[in-house]
Amino acid sequence: MKHRTVWAVVVCGLVACAAVAHADDPLPSWSDGAAKQAIVDFVKVTTDASNPKFVPPEARIAAFDQDGTTWVSHPMYTQVVYCFDRVAVLAKEKPELRNREPFKTVLSGNREAIAKLTMKDLEIILAATLSGMTVEQFRSEVKGWLETARDPRWKRPFTELVYQPMLEVMKYLRANGYKTYIVTGGGQDFVRVYAEQVYGIPPEQIVGTMGGTKYGYAKDGQPVLTKEPKMLLNDDNAGKPEGIHLMIGRRPYIAFGNSTGDRQMLEYTGAGDGARLSLLVLHDDAQREYAYGPAQGLPNTKVGTFTQALYDEAKEKGWVVISMKNDWKRIFAFE
Amino acid sequence: MKHRTVWAVVVCGLVACAAVAHADDPLPSWSDGAAKQAIVDFVKVTTDASNPKFVPPEARIAAFDQDGTTWVSHPMYTQVVYCFDRVAVLAKEKPELRNREPFKTVLSGNREAIAKLTMKDLEIILAATLSGMTVEQFRSEVKGWLETARDPRWKRPFTELVYQPMLEVMKYLRANGYKTYIVTGGGQDFVRVYAEQVYGIPPEQIVGTMGGTKYGYAKDGQPVLTKEPKMLLNDDNAGKPEGIHLMIGRRPYIAFGNSTGDRQMLEYTGAGDGARLSLLVLHDDAQREYAYGPAQGLPNTKVGTFTQALYDEAKEKGWVVISMKNDWKRIFAFE
Repeated sequence: MKHRTVWAVVVCGLVACAAVAHADDPLPSWSDGAAKQAIVDFVKVTTDASNPKFVPPEARIAAFDQDGTTWVSHPMYTQVVYCFDRVAVLAKEKPELRNREPFKTVLSGNREAIAKLTMKDLEIILAATLSGMTVEQFRSEVKGWLETARDPRWKRPFTELVYQPMLEVMKYLRANGYKTYIVTGGGQDFVRVYAEQVYGIPPEQIVGTMGGTKYGYAKDGQPVLTKEPKMLLNDDNAGKPEGIHLMIGRRPYIAFGNSTGDRQMLEYTGAGDGARLSLLVLHDDAQREYAYGPAQGLPNTKVGTFTQALYDEAKEKGWVVISMKNDWKRIFAFE
Repeated sequence: MKHRTVWAVVVCGLVACAAVAHADDPLPSWSDGAAKQAIVDFVKVTTDASNPKFVPPEARIAAFDQDGTTWVSHPMYTQVVYCFDRVAVLAKEKPELRNREPFKTVLSGNREAIAKLTMKDLEIILAATLSGMTVEQFRSEVKGWLETARDPRWKRPFTELVYQPMLEVMKYLRANGYKTYIVTGGGQDFVRVYAEQVYGIPPEQIVGTMGGTKYGYAKDGQPVLTKEPKMLLNDDNAGKPEGIHLMIGRRPYIAFGNSTGDRQMLEYTGAGDGARLSLLVLHDDAQREYAYGPAQGLPNTKVGTFTQALYDEAKEKGWVVISMKNDWKRIFAFE
């Protein structure tokens, strides 16, 4: 065999190996490291029937926070952008809103004034834009908005700003018998509109902040469910494990979060028996996404607070901190 | 060929045919008739990709009321029996309850006095017996009770008093890609304790009356969810479609009920587009189970009211009325 032939065989072999390795890697957007290894180990241990930490298929529950964990939430939650945009539509139907606060401030577009809106103001805006219509009308309003609204930095639909590494984790878990759930502080009905298309997660697996609906009849006698300005459960902080119990009735084996709003969900998940894994996404990549914290000295922000205290609790309890900068080769599918 | 041989072949052929027919019949406890045919036709139409009424697998949702629809609820709901029995246990821990109403009446065992308890009395009893403990404690209390409690008529565990024909429908629907849900006025956490074993339905597919829980920490620092005496949603009457929207986020294609408490769920199901089927179980078999109504002149009762008005609405809207007497060959698996 000539040298050139030998080299050709070796090179082909290496290429084939690399291709196989890539095809076999369920998490190709993840760099090799502690975070990726922890996820792969968790799946191996919990799906191996001979392992004492084996989890029967029906108990395999995975919970994902959304904003800041599976898609961009900085500098403003997508749903809040929706509600603000929706105020303009409402003002066309009801011109009297133009001179009424807090609608007037939102319509002014004055960012400084908008940033000063109180929680009470926000509640009024949420109630006005997220209730009063049938569930079908709401679905179609959100759908229409998502088709045209664009994120100001990437100039893309918000639904494209999902983190590719997290989509890979969801698929990997599902391929191993896990039921994937979104457990979000966002509105349950809002997230349901796009979750099947964006995450492959059906509406019955979305746990979010729950608003009441009211059963009644339309003019033609057809039954309708109308969205009410009444909160049944605020699915944030302690509300997350409460929402998980309400909607799922089982403790997750693995949970992903990124802020203090996820603390109780990660505690609750981690405190179960057998193999449990709690993970936190750290936004430390100002170049490819954002860097905010203030864990590890990152700049503070109103949105998705990853405090140093949360970081310390993670270290103490063995939760995995995912560095977007170091653990993710790629952040978005469009990169 | 001799006559005897011919007969033997014919008889063997008939026996073989009968055996095959039985093996192929997904609903062997159902008599041939309109009700059985409606269910079989519904499944055929909605799972045939070439049929305009085909339903994609992810949208196949089936809803079953429980009390009186999938198991015996007469003369008293099983969960109420549980709460009454539980009062005796509570009174041992807190002797002061012995002289306090409505506990005193329940403890007296005086049926006439118990029957006169008001809705307010019942609420006090439910709050005292269904809240204040962790969700794990509650689960273990209900489990323990179910193991020893017996129905007074059949002298069997309550979990054996499920209707065999309904178990067959559940299996048949699941074999055809339907997700089966219990949608009950009973407590969500109560039904979850036994639903997987009794119906093959996991906790996340139980929609029931929802009580709040409170996240906190035990003395050892472990996170716990404690059941609160706070109702988030009364999953009965109009609460049923509201609960379906909250927990599932999709309209069912098929729904089973037996009383006015199911009316709105059946209306909501029936009003969807494409093939939808609403069905009502009529308790008209005093010999094998019970006969109560007052639809079709059956005796009135406090439990699971099937009124004549509901019967008329069923006829008008094309809902299927299932006669226990005529449509079911067998009621219980133990028969």
